[in-house]
Amino acid sequence: MAKPTPLSGFPELLPAQRSVETIVLSTLAKVFELHGFANIETRAVEPMDQLLRKGDTSKEVYVLRRLQEEDGGKDAGLGLHFDLTVPFARYVLENAGKLEFPFRRYQIQKVWRGERPQDGRYREFTQADIDVVGVGELPVHHDVEIARVMLDGLSRLADPALIGLPGFRLQVNNRKLIQGFYTGLGIADLDETMRLIDKLDKLPPATVGEQLVASGLRAEQAESCLALARICTPDDSFEEQVRALGVSHPLLDEGLAELADLMRGCAPLVSATVRIEADLKIARGLDYYTGTVFETRLDGFESLGSICSGGRYDALASDGRTTYPGVGISLGVSRLLVPLLNKGVLTADRSVPSAVLVALTDEESRSASDRLADQLRANDVPCEVAASPQKFGKQIRYAERRGIPYVLFATDDGPQVKDIRSGEQVGVDPLTWTPPAADLKPSIRVSTGSTPEREKNQ
Amino acid sequence: MAKPTPLSGFPELLPAQRSVETIVLSTLAKVFELHGFANIETRAVEPMDQLLRKGDTSKEVYVLRRLQEEDGGKDAGLGLHFDLTVPFARYVLENAGKLEFPFRRYQIQKVWRGERPQDGRYREFTQADIDVVGVGELPVHHDVEIARVMLDGLSRLADPALIGLPGFRLQVNNRKLIQGFYTGLGIADLDETMRLIDKLDKLPPATVGEQLVASGLRAEQAESCLALARICTPDDSFEEQVRALGVSHPLLDEGLAELADLMRGCAPLVSATVRIEADLKIARGLDYYTGTVFETRLDGFESLGSICSGGRYDALASDGRTTYPGVGISLGVSRLLVPLLNKGVLTADRSVPSAVLVALTDEESRSASDRLADQLRANDVPCEVAASPQKFGKQIRYAERRGIPYVLFATDDGPQVKDIRSGEQVGVDPLTWTPPAADLKPSIRVSTGSTPEREKNQ
Repeated sequence: MAKPTPLSGFPELLPAQRSVETIVLSTLAKVFELHGFANIETRAVEPMDQLLRKGDTSKEVYVLRRLQEEDGGKDAGLGLHFDLTVPFARYVLENAGKLEFPFRRYQIQKVWRGERPQDGRYREFTQADIDVVGVGELPVHHDVEIARVMLDGLSRLADPALIGLPGFRLQVNNRKLIQGFYTGLGIADLDETMRLIDKLDKLPPATVGEQLVASGLRAEQAESCLALARICTPDDSFEEQVRALGVSHPLLDEGLAELADLMRGCAPLVSATVRIEADLKIARGLDYYTGTVFETRLDGFESLGSICSGGRYDALASDGRTTYPGVGISLGVSRLLVPLLNKGVLTADRSVPSAVLVALTDEESRSASDRLADQLRANDVPCEVAASPQKFGKQIRYAERRGIPYVLFATDDGPQVKDIRSGEQVGVDPLTWTPPAADLKPSIRVSTGSTPEREKNQ
Repeated sequence: MAKPTPLSGFPELLPAQRSVETIVLSTLAKVFELHGFANIETRAVEPMDQLLRKGDTSKEVYVLRRLQEEDGGKDAGLGLHFDLTVPFARYVLENAGKLEFPFRRYQIQKVWRGERPQDGRYREFTQADIDVVGVGELPVHHDVEIARVMLDGLSRLADPALIGLPGFRLQVNNRKLIQGFYTGLGIADLDETMRLIDKLDKLPPATVGEQLVASGLRAEQAESCLALARICTPDDSFEEQVRALGVSHPLLDEGLAELADLMRGCAPLVSATVRIEADLKIARGLDYYTGTVFETRLDGFESLGSICSGGRYDALASDGRTTYPGVGISLGVSRLLVPLLNKGVLTADRSVPSAVLVALTDEESRSASDRLADQLRANDVPCEVAASPQKFGKQIRYAERRGIPYVLFATDDGPQVKDIRSGEQVGVDPLTWTPPAADLKPSIRVSTGSTPEREKNQ
C-alpha cells in the first residue's frame, strides 16, 4: 500500500490536536449537564424521505447502499444525517411515550454533507447541539434558557484558565419581530424580504436596498427594512429604537417582548469576552424558525461565519395529533476548531496522556517497572513504561519528544522522579507521590501572536 | 409525519440507558489514558479499495453516493468503515512522519456493517479499540501490555463500586504455538485446520474430529489437534501439558514462550471476577493474526460470543518500504451493553443529569430561581429550574419521575433542600451546599435476579 493522502473535506486530527478537541468537548458536555441536559446519540442514518422532507434546504445527502445488494434493495432508502435536528425530531416522536417533557437533551456527533469541500466547509464534521422540546406548548423562557446555557459554555471556552479561545459574540433576533415589522409595513413576501436582508452579511446596504426594490418593495419600505436591520444593541434598548421607526403590529409587539425578555435574562452571563447582542439584521432566512434566532461570531475569526446557530421551531416534530415545539442551538465544533488547530492557534502541550515515563533499567526489570507504573495508576497518574532499556539520556529524550513532564527512575536509593523541564530530581514514594494537578493532564496552549502553520494536516 | 418505528440493527438508547453507556465509555477512556494511550478519531469513510483489501473477510460494506451525483462520480469510491483497524492502519501510514513510535492509541467510534440484523448483530455499533504499533519491529512485551490494559479496564467494569458488570474471562492463545504444533505434526493446510478447530465453539469434538479427517488429516493428527485444543489453564502450566503431547518445532517453542510470558505478566491483574486463561482452542481462524490472539467472554452471557477480541499483526500496515507491526484488542461496546440494557440488567437511577430541582414559586420569581441554580452550578452541582410554577407537590413528583434526588425551595426562612427519598428538609446556603458525592451524578443499577424487559427499545 502506497502512502495514503488525506481526503479533502474529511478533517482528521493528530493526537495532540485531538486532545484539544476532547478538552473542548468535555467542557461543553459538563456545562450542558450542569444545566440538566441529558445526553443522547442517534443512529447515523435516517430514511431518505425524512432527510429530504424539507426539500428546498439543498443539503447534499450521502445515500447508502449495501455492497452486496442490488439497487432498490431495502437499504437503498437510507442516507447519512446532515444535522442533528432531523434525527432528534424523529427520536422525540419515536420515544415520546418514554420521555419526560420538557425534554432537555444535548447531542455531540458527526454529521455528513456531500458539499464541495471549500470555504471552510467539511463533508464530515462534529456538531454539539442543545435543545429543549415540549408537548403542545413550550414557554418562551426556554428560549432564554438555551441562550444562557450556550453563553455559559462559550464563557468556559473563552476562559484562559480552562481553554482560552478568543471571545464570542452571540447575536439574537426574533422572527416574530421581523415578520410583524414587515407585515406592519404592508410587505407581502416576507420570506423573500428576509432572504435579501440576510445578504447584508456580504453586500453593502445600498445594493441590498436596490434588490429589495427590485423584489417589489416601495423605496420607503426598503428603507424601513434597512433601518430595522441597522439596529444592534447590547441590551433591551433595541425596543425603543424599533418603536421610533413608527411601525406597529401585534406580532411585532410579541417579538419585541420575547427578545427583550431574552436580553434581560442573559445579562448576568455577559462578560468582556462573551457578549450578547440584539442584532436585528440576523434573519436565518433559509431555515424554518418561528421566533428566536441565534448566530455567533468568534472574535478575530469572523470569516468563519456563524459558528453557533439555532432558534425556535413551533413545530420541531409532529405526528399529526400532537405537536412538539422546540428551541435549540448548534455549535459547529469542527468549524470552530479545525481552522484554529491547523493554523497552530491551539495546541496541546503533549501528544500522549502520560504525565510520567517510568524508566527501564533492563528487560529483566520490566515487571518491576510495570509495578511502579501500576502504583502511580492507582493514584490516577497516567504513565507509561519505557519501550526499551536505552541509556537514561535517551529515555529522557523519548519523554521530551512526547511532552511527558516527569521520568521515574528506580535507583539504589529507591525511586526518584526527575522533572525534565527543570532538571530537578527528588526521591519519592510511588505509592503516594502524584505530580501537581496542572501536570496530570495535557493542557491547551493558545498562540496569540503569529499563527505558525505547524501540525497542518488538512 | 406518522410515528416512526425503529430501524432493525441500528440500536438507539433512551437517556437513562445512554447514561449507563457514557459511564462505561468514560471508565474505559480513563483506564486507557492511565496506561498512556492517546485518543484519536478517524473519519467514518475509507476508499473502497482499502475496505475490500482483504476481500475474503466478507464484511458487508455500506457504499456511499452523493444524492446529486451520477454513479461513478468521485465519491462513488467511498464506503463506511466496518472496523477501526483498517482506518487506524491507514492513519498510521498517512501520519507516520508526525507520530512517535511505539504509538499507543485508543479509539472509540461507531462502525457499520450491512449484515442481517439478527443473532445480536448490529448494522451500527460502537467499538473501543486499543493498539500499540511500532516501526519495523514491536517487542512481544507490548502483547502483554495490551492484555494488561484490557484486564485493568474489564476489572473496573466488573467493580461493583464503579459499574458492577458480571465477571469476564480473557482467553488467550498464540498463532505461532498452533502453527508450530500443526507443522510439527506434519499437517500441510494450517489455515483449514485452524478454521475447523474454531468450530469447537459450536460443534462437539467428535464431529470436528471427523471434519479434520475429512479435510485430509490422519486420525492421530486429528486427535493431537483436539488434544491441544482441550488444554486450558489459568497460568503458564499449559506449557507442560503441550510438551507432554510430544510434538516439537521451533515455532511451537516461540509460541509457548510468548504465551507463557503473557500469562505471567498478567497474573498480578487477575481477580475473582476478571480472569485470564491460556485457552489453546482459540484460533480466530478468519483473521490475519500472526502471534497472540485474544477473545473474551462475559460470565453468564456466553451466548453473546466474544465481546472483546484481537491479537498481533506482524504487518498491521506497510507502505512497501517500512512495515508497522501492531498488537491490539477491540471491545464490542454495543455488543456488550445493548442486550444488557434492553433486558433491564443495567439501568441508571435517573434520566437527567440534574441532582437538584430548583422549585419555582411563580413566573415572576424565575430569575431568582435561575440565580439559585447558577449558585449551585458554580459548585459543579447539576440542576434545573422547574418548568412551571405548579403546586410544590407536583414539582416534587416532576423531580421523582426523573429520579432527581433533591428539591431546593426558596422559603421565607431562606432556601431549604428536601431529599425526596427520605422526606428530610433542611435549610442550606446555596453558595456552599452540595449533595453527597454519590448523588452528584447518575449511578448504574445492576439487576442480578430476574431480568425484566423494561426500557426495551430494540
